[in-house]
Amino acid sequence: MPAPLFEVPYYAVIFCAKRTDEDEPGYAEMAGEMARLAATMPGYLGVESTRDPQTGLGITVSYWKDEASILGWKKQADHAGARKLGREKWYASYALRVAKIERDYDFRADPRD
Amino acid sequence: MPAPLFEVPYYAVIFCAKRTDEDEPGYAEMAGEMARLAATMPGYLGVESTRDPQTGLGITVSYWKDEASILGWKKQADHAGARKLGREKWYASYALRVAKIERDYDFRADPRD
Repeated sequence: MPAPLFEVPYYAVIFCAKRTDEDEPGYAEMAGEMARLAATMPGYLGVESTRDPQTGLGITVSYWKDEASILGWKKQADHAGARKLGREKWYASYALRVAKIERDYDFRADPRD
Repeated sequence: MPAPLFEVPYYAVIFCAKRTDEDEPGYAEMAGEMARLAATMPGYLGVESTRDPQTGLGITVSYWKDEASILGWKKQADHAGARKLGREKWYASYALRVAKIERDYDFRADPRD
């Protein structure tokens, strides 16, 4: 689902990655574990994530209260280990960008949803 | 593919949308046409886009030189028409955020790729 709007300004980490091999073991478990762990970190606001299984291209945008929360998440030990595994095994390439959200809006076809 | 890095600061439009119905006609054609049109706009830098066909959740992040280029794209007539169709037919919900990229980095498993 699209993440809700938050109070501006806030921060986003835009992570776009191309996978090496869909069958590389351990990826789904690690991704799920990292999503759960991120949600426990101070300053975490929410996440949007999707991947096309056919092309192996995924985009995950995580939202954070401020730059200090992003730094805290970067330094978190398990996450640092997962990032190392990502470079060694799972990702053919990725780009990561840190951005300050300055405005946002949303839309819902059926407001009762 | 992940988009290349650009000279900071630059801007991103983060668009996360949940589709109504995968079989709604005209969507793929319009999406392709909008991607081609965006690439002709002044200040356009690049795009990252992916969607999971099973969940209907897609994320498109387009990159722009400055806020003026984003405003130019928003005002482009065909794009405004496509956005209206999107709200009427294709999207159950979406969130759109405008962000200033402050730092970025990338990774490539095989630098010869």
